[in-house]
Amino acid sequence: MRKLEVGIQGGAGFTGGELIRLLLRHPRVRLAGATSATFPGRPVSLAHPNLRGRTDLSFSRKLDYGRLDALFMAGDHGDAMAAVPAILRRAGGLRIIDLSGDFRLQDPALYPLWYARAHRAPGLLKEFVYGLTELNRVRLRKARLVANPGCFATAAALALGPLARAGAAGIVAVTAVTGSSGSGAKPSPVTHHPTRHANMRAYKPFCHQHVPEVEQLLEALAGKKSLRLSLVPVSGPFTRGIYAVCQAALPAGWKAGTVREAFRRAYDGCAFVRLVEEPPSLNAVVGSNHCDLFATVREGRIVVISAIDNLIKGAAGQAVQNLNVMMGFDERAGLDFAGHYP
Amino acid sequence: MRKLEVGIQGGAGFTGGELIRLLLRHPRVRLAGATSATFPGRPVSLAHPNLRGRTDLSFSRKLDYGRLDALFMAGDHGDAMAAVPAILRRAGGLRIIDLSGDFRLQDPALYPLWYARAHRAPGLLKEFVYGLTELNRVRLRKARLVANPGCFATAAALALGPLARAGAAGIVAVTAVTGSSGSGAKPSPVTHHPTRHANMRAYKPFCHQHVPEVEQLLEALAGKKSLRLSLVPVSGPFTRGIYAVCQAALPAGWKAGTVREAFRRAYDGCAFVRLVEEPPSLNAVVGSNHCDLFATVREGRIVVISAIDNLIKGAAGQAVQNLNVMMGFDERAGLDFAGHYP
Amino acid sequence: MRKLEVGIQGGAGFTGGELIRLLLRHPRVRLAGATSATFPGRPVSLAHPNLRGRTDLSFSRKLDYGRLDALFMAGDHGDAMAAVPAILRRAGGLRIIDLSGDFRLQDPALYPLWYARAHRAPGLLKEFVYGLTELNRVRLRKARLVANPGCFATAAALALGPLARAGAAGIVAVTAVTGSSGSGAKPSPVTHHPTRHANMRAYKPFCHQHVPEVEQLLEALAGKKSLRLSLVPVSGPFTRGIYAVCQAALPAGWKAGTVREAFRRAYDGCAFVRLVEEPPSLNAVVGSNHCDLFATVREGRIVVISAIDNLIKGAAGQAVQNLNVMMGFDERAGLDFAGHYP
Amino acid sequence: MRKLEVGIQGGAGFTGGELIRLLLRHPRVRLAGATSATFPGRPVSLAHPNLRGRTDLSFSRKLDYGRLDALFMAGDHGDAMAAVPAILRRAGGLRIIDLSGDFRLQDPALYPLWYARAHRAPGLLKEFVYGLTELNRVRLRKARLVANPGCFATAAALALGPLARAGAAGIVAVTAVTGSSGSGAKPSPVTHHPTRHANMRAYKPFCHQHVPEVEQLLEALAGKKSLRLSLVPVSGPFTRGIYAVCQAALPAGWKAGTVREAFRRAYDGCAFVRLVEEPPSLNAVVGSNHCDLFATVREGRIVVISAIDNLIKGAAGQAVQNLNVMMGFDERAGLDFAGHYP
Repeated sequence: MRKLEVGIQGGAGFTGGELIRLLLRHPRVRLAGATSATFPGRPVSLAHPNLRGRTDLSFSRKLDYGRLDALFMAGDHGDAMAAVPAILRRAGGLRIIDLSGDFRLQDPALYPLWYARAHRAPGLLKEFVYGLTELNRVRLRKARLVANPGCFATAAALALGPLARAGAAGIVAVTAVTGSSGSGAKPSPVTHHPTRHANMRAYKPFCHQHVPEVEQLLEALAGKKSLRLSLVPVSGPFTRGIYAVCQAALPAGWKAGTVREAFRRAYDGCAFVRLVEEPPSLNAVVGSNHCDLFATVREGRIVVISAIDNLIKGAAGQAVQNLNVMMGFDERAGLDFAGHYP
Repeated sequence: MRKLEVGIQGGAGFTGGELIRLLLRHPRVRLAGATSATFPGRPVSLAHPNLRGRTDLSFSRKLDYGRLDALFMAGDHGDAMAAVPAILRRAGGLRIIDLSGDFRLQDPALYPLWYARAHRAPGLLKEFVYGLTELNRVRLRKARLVANPGCFATAAALALGPLARAGAAGIVAVTAVTGSSGSGAKPSPVTHHPTRHANMRAYKPFCHQHVPEVEQLLEALAGKKSLRLSLVPVSGPFTRGIYAVCQAALPAGWKAGTVREAFRRAYDGCAFVRLVEEPPSLNAVVGSNHCDLFATVREGRIVVISAIDNLIKGAAGQAVQNLNVMMGFDERAGLDFAGHYP
Repeated sequence: MRKLEVGIQGGAGFTGGELIRLLLRHPRVRLAGATSATFPGRPVSLAHPNLRGRTDLSFSRKLDYGRLDALFMAGDHGDAMAAVPAILRRAGGLRIIDLSGDFRLQDPALYPLWYARAHRAPGLLKEFVYGLTELNRVRLRKARLVANPGCFATAAALALGPLARAGAAGIVAVTAVTGSSGSGAKPSPVTHHPTRHANMRAYKPFCHQHVPEVEQLLEALAGKKSLRLSLVPVSGPFTRGIYAVCQAALPAGWKAGTVREAFRRAYDGCAFVRLVEEPPSLNAVVGSNHCDLFATVREGRIVVISAIDNLIKGAAGQAVQNLNVMMGFDERAGLDFAGHYP
Repeated sequence: MRKLEVGIQGGAGFTGGELIRLLLRHPRVRLAGATSATFPGRPVSLAHPNLRGRTDLSFSRKLDYGRLDALFMAGDHGDAMAAVPAILRRAGGLRIIDLSGDFRLQDPALYPLWYARAHRAPGLLKEFVYGLTELNRVRLRKARLVANPGCFATAAALALGPLARAGAAGIVAVTAVTGSSGSGAKPSPVTHHPTRHANMRAYKPFCHQHVPEVEQLLEALAGKKSLRLSLVPVSGPFTRGIYAVCQAALPAGWKAGTVREAFRRAYDGCAFVRLVEEPPSLNAVVGSNHCDLFATVREGRIVVISAIDNLIKGAAGQAVQNLNVMMGFDERAGLDFAGHYP
């Protein structure tokens, strides 16, 4: 069986490293190349020492888009909106999965508000399908261009999608704690070990750019104005994962069973979403494409807690999952593993 | 100047260790003794190796209550309610600061619900003053018996007290992450390093026993039904501190300035509460009796974030602070230090 | 192709969990069962939440040895020496890989010294082959009973084996830092999170029970008295991995090239040993069966540094590797993956 | 009593922050000012959020040396050798404690080898006294210029000084693990949280610049060629502390009692060195000026293990201790506290 030829634009970051690691073991894919502006010509193991001895691949400056079937874009925000129009002119049939925020919002007017920049390719926004696999699978099957969700967005949307579909509305208070790998491979004050270690620090309260993509999805799922996010992101003292605690009022007329049934229906048959009966542990999902979800109801309140690996289900793993869905592969191809525990 | 003779009942736990450390350097206090059922006759440095060479004190089995001016009780929940009546019979004038939950709730009917046991000394409940120092200072000045608040309760009450006083009501969604030292010195599955490290795990959602003491205080501050807590505690992968994120709807008619003013007024002149302009960092308060508080308002929502050291402001430090207030000492005596950073 | 039927005795510990995880994805193996005295009849995901949804297997009380081709024993020290004789009477042809220390030392007189107990099946000691795969592969190909090395022993032996083969002798000073998962799944004071977090603590200086198995192997490799270990184990504040720093005098007549060549020759063609040019990073091997080795020479001194995942290359992974060698499978079967980074 | 006027050159780094924290509570000192090139005119709490509310001090661009009694220099390596000559010309009687490596080595020829730069003020080298307080106290009492030891050097010298005094010689294998705060306040790849967390990584094996200052001190203590260091520094996954494991051959004719006696004699009456009977725990010294030392002998080998807080005993605390000795203050002034535990 001919393997799919795929490339990675921006392979030296943490997400790029996970993409390389996953794609090297994907049964239906051949990793044709990965670019890096920092390490051109150098072995990928220089940036990703876990991959030493597992591949002979070196980073390239460029990819030959014409020879690729699919392209993952794992560069900085702003890179994809600058590059995609030209790429599509050269290789019109190429499937693209963009892991940045550049094509997640359908409304170009939102970019200046949330990303502090005008969109450079607004005409393409409607062509991108939002890649929250479990909640948008039908559209992804026919997609050619995919906007892969943000890590906080994945955690929140998986927690809230079933409630939105069932008609819930109003404010959800979300406090979501992220590991430091979410800030990328480049050192900065917020990821300086001496001050990140054993610390907790909230940032961008109510203002995180992942909010609108979740609200856009929830509205699409509900077919009307739906839940609104009041999100407080917190930097946590660990490397991997997002742990999101979502609290809302129980909608009038709902019971515990309404919630349970909404989750059961939303994720029935979903290999990567596990409904758990106790609050989840982050370390049970780290290293895997799983999302563990817990929901409970008490005295008119709902809490939903979701746990994901930010670089896998929150980035590279979901990107591969989206490729699988687009290509008609088994959705689990290349992702069918548990992380180690503990 | 004669020093106050104080004793510690239950000195081998983490809270006991902090009490010993603080009291050894308190300018107005002489630490007369500390009991331990586990280490009777052994040096306190066996349980608290940081104190090696800093004191010759050994744990005793018992204290001579008649020779004490004040007693800190740092045993397990249930111990104090069993012991206090007899202690008071023997030493009626003794000042007692109980760090357990045994005397925090005024209504004995709440104990079976939140602590799964009937109260053994319900007649004493009304005599204990709730020791959230900054919010109950006037009553503490005349107190002889003090119920020292829980660690989550301290973090939440300092965050919400000003809003309650200003008349806010309704539900507050609180997600509060705690360090492992809050679980005490005895190993257990929830503090097993391999599974606690790099992990996050919620527990007792909506059901934590610190909820009613906060609601009781807020009601007292408001003089009417006030804010209600929807609390999700989370076990975090660090040793020290509580980081509480509190979200609520902005009450009708309030503006950002209303909130700012409520906090300013509540904590004006309070040495240990610091109002900060950015979300606080936990590591800025760890090792000290400080609480860093941040409040902001946006689109009809309030978020208040509080950070404390769970064993100091959340336990031993606040207990000493309460002693200072009761005795008319400078409130900062023995507590006038910053933690190290980073 | 018929798959090998394998069982795990003692599947609820951390090593047992890794064995289950690895064997579930091993292409040549069917995991027939795993025992647990603690969780009989309960799903394996109760002990290993990472495996939820990945297997329907429940723990059993017993295994039907007669239907197994191979058995992994992952119980406590002492269990295997008690059980193996009876197992072999019932299932004489069974291949056994024991992950405890029970059959690692050929000389029964050493057990009272290092394990504080007399051996209960001394007659079997000579039948067990020591499973340090890379250094004992020839004998393992014909083995039926394998004593899987200890985690410190694996790290130290891989670092020192090439020097021993090349004729080095004398004392090696080894300081080896281990993650907390090496202490197992049962909570204890040494793995209590509040005191293990951000801490370092040496233990059993010069007296760790992994010393004699390394010296025995080095002597076998050298064919004479060889290097002797002066080992100081240290408990480190992380969950996974062993980082061993080995220092020795450069033998007379050796040069840097002698060392380099010894390592190259020892590990040429070894998929899991990676010779690295800079001191290794532990996080480059965690989650994989790799050992990263660094050796350098300066002013008459050698330092060799090795890094492994204690539960994979130091336990479950090497056990599977040994099964592969015994069965004539590709040595990498079921182990051909990198861990995630970071 | 008139307080000593002291200033800090370079107060915005981690060591500067600890100096400020310590000096603010020092009973004999008034902190007159602290400079920062990064934050001139800004409150010190901007760099050191633990100090918020504890001081009104802002960083200045310059200090008025003429009004100071003592100056701590906590800038980068190279700054002090550039600045001290001019400072002394302006304020000849000023006492200076330099925390960089600039004046630690007596022999100017060593600087190009170990610090990759020629010394700019070689004439001053002999005037600086090496500030390993416990081992050089007599000379420090009369010192005006002090070179404060490096953090690794402090840990190693306290471990080895007694052996050197007793006449030991030969190679000592030292593996010393450091927290990330030793790398300073500026983000860099080696302190990037995602890759430092849960990691171990050796660096500069045998080549660390703290080696020659230890050997120089040991030689001075022995009065002849003494122990030589074979040091492998390791970056550990914690913020604070150095844990040094030192292994050597037992000198001919020595017994366990020889070692015990050497340590007892060296540190008798030393408030900050604690001889412990079990291998020390790093968390028992972090937050304090203590050094916990353990020494044992077995089969012709000695192991000495030392644990210090790298920023206190390994930097700012020892600097204050040296000030105390120089000034004839109680050596414990401003340092008489334990860290918190756990």
